[in-house]
Amino acid sequence: MIWVSGWRLAAAVSEAGGLGLLGAGSMKPEVLRAHIRKLRQATTKAFGVNLPLLYKHMDACIDVVLEEEVPILFSSAGSPAAVAERLRAAGRIHVHVVAAVRQAQKCEDLGLDAVVCEGVEAGGHNAPQGTTSLCLIPQIADAVDLPVIAAGGIADGRAMAAALALGAQAVQVGTRFAVCAESSAHKAYKQAVVAAGDRATVLALSPVTPVRLIKNPFALRALDAERSGASVDELRALLGHGRGRAAIFCGDVREGEIEAGQISGLIDDVPKAHEIVERLMEGYQRSLSTLNQLSH
Amino acid sequence: MIWVSGWRLAAAVSEAGGLGLLGAGSMKPEVLRAHIRKLRQATTKAFGVNLPLLYKHMDACIDVVLEEEVPILFSSAGSPAAVAERLRAAGRIHVHVVAAVRQAQKCEDLGLDAVVCEGVEAGGHNAPQGTTSLCLIPQIADAVDLPVIAAGGIADGRAMAAALALGAQAVQVGTRFAVCAESSAHKAYKQAVVAAGDRATVLALSPVTPVRLIKNPFALRALDAERSGASVDELRALLGHGRGRAAIFCGDVREGEIEAGQISGLIDDVPKAHEIVERLMEGYQRSLSTLNQLSH
Repeated sequence: MIWVSGWRLAAAVSEAGGLGLLGAGSMKPEVLRAHIRKLRQATTKAFGVNLPLLYKHMDACIDVVLEEEVPILFSSAGSPAAVAERLRAAGRIHVHVVAAVRQAQKCEDLGLDAVVCEGVEAGGHNAPQGTTSLCLIPQIADAVDLPVIAAGGIADGRAMAAALALGAQAVQVGTRFAVCAESSAHKAYKQAVVAAGDRATVLALSPVTPVRLIKNPFALRALDAERSGASVDELRALLGHGRGRAAIFCGDVREGEIEAGQISGLIDDVPKAHEIVERLMEGYQRSLSTLNQLSH
Repeated sequence: MIWVSGWRLAAAVSEAGGLGLLGAGSMKPEVLRAHIRKLRQATTKAFGVNLPLLYKHMDACIDVVLEEEVPILFSSAGSPAAVAERLRAAGRIHVHVVAAVRQAQKCEDLGLDAVVCEGVEAGGHNAPQGTTSLCLIPQIADAVDLPVIAAGGIADGRAMAAALALGAQAVQVGTRFAVCAESSAHKAYKQAVVAAGDRATVLALSPVTPVRLIKNPFALRALDAERSGASVDELRALLGHGRGRAAIFCGDVREGEIEAGQISGLIDDVPKAHEIVERLMEGYQRSLSTLNQLSH
């Protein structure tokens, strides 16, 4: 949720009854601090910060999270061990994003509070294993006693019911909130997701680090290079820098990386965040009614 | 379900309350006829035949299906148009396997009776789109009025509840039944699936035709060749012929293609088919109870 989830979106989600998360991966430490303070002014509800651990400003961002007394940190993209120690000492809630059973077990061993179980349908940076939410959620739910938060492919109440049926205790919703009024994504990015059909996304750049993108001229070039056996260095050169920002924040939907989940095909409007939360709850209840009718 | 679903498995599934399917992709026409006749002696319940349309004996197998008055045909891997006409004229039920919204709409236009919506987690031959069941089921359910049968990633009652919550009306279960007492798969194949963990399968040979396999020396060679940019002809030469039969029917789990779904990691025993059906129903009810508790 880099370039997408600033204080406006996080506050709107928390106010609507969800747990708003600041996507810190696109923020320098003092920018993160400013967002945390604005978020506190906008809501008294609980919120969290999501921090990719491979991020170069990571240590300074953890300092900010601790200094500003953020109650909940979601970490991703790296080993949670070092961060876990700092957060536990400070009495904070620590959740880590995993894509395999062994990673979830490691989080449990480290004393974390929950895991986000992320399937290959998720947008943006992705795990190399390629395991789908439908296969991953029940296997992680069986393997650990921690609460499991399902992510990847969840944009409506049907998917929320499915994730909970599979053994998750909660869901994390990305692309659906990236395309709402309070998201700081560029209008052209939101329109690209709205226009996307069921076959719009690809998992590209796997030899560097897999990332799910909506197909555009850049994504197709990256796939072509990969298929013709380009080296990691060649792919890195092709990727360059700043393509995520270019597409998501600046609206270059031809040459930027349009990071978005495979469920983009189901997204066809730009509502307010509270409407998304209301639809999730209504859709969940409709799905549950259907299941109850089928079982009689 | 080639080399797996002969008359014994199909009869056991139909007797247990499911719809048993003969996997005709590994059968010559007269072998298919013999299986249909034995199946009729083993059960009076409804059953069907699954036929990959790219199969060279396809026309002769359709003749057999019509002559033997098989009530239900599931077709896959090709355009259902020509077959649809023959089956409609004979008053049979025709279901086709799809992996994209547009394919499902085409089936509806052709007057088919239902679609199987197959996600990328499915074992064996797979679609190039890579769409997961969690993303595909609701989009197809929204796009067509036909009954949607979910396939790919479904081995227990939790996944059945998830599929129905997403908008499917039924589920098709592959790998779980491939690993049961009545499956004609080799013991070594069944053991390979039982031993598989959550990261055991890969989607290989995509430039030829994507196939989901449990990683073994052959699958890793195929992936290496693909990643270093091997041509379609080179990959075809590497593949050769008969590797599916070698692994599934003859037990060569090193050099054969161990076709199996990504949900293999959840499969850890070799029960009878009726026990699988009972577990599906019990697990479904448990999931539903959990959802009902969560919604109060």
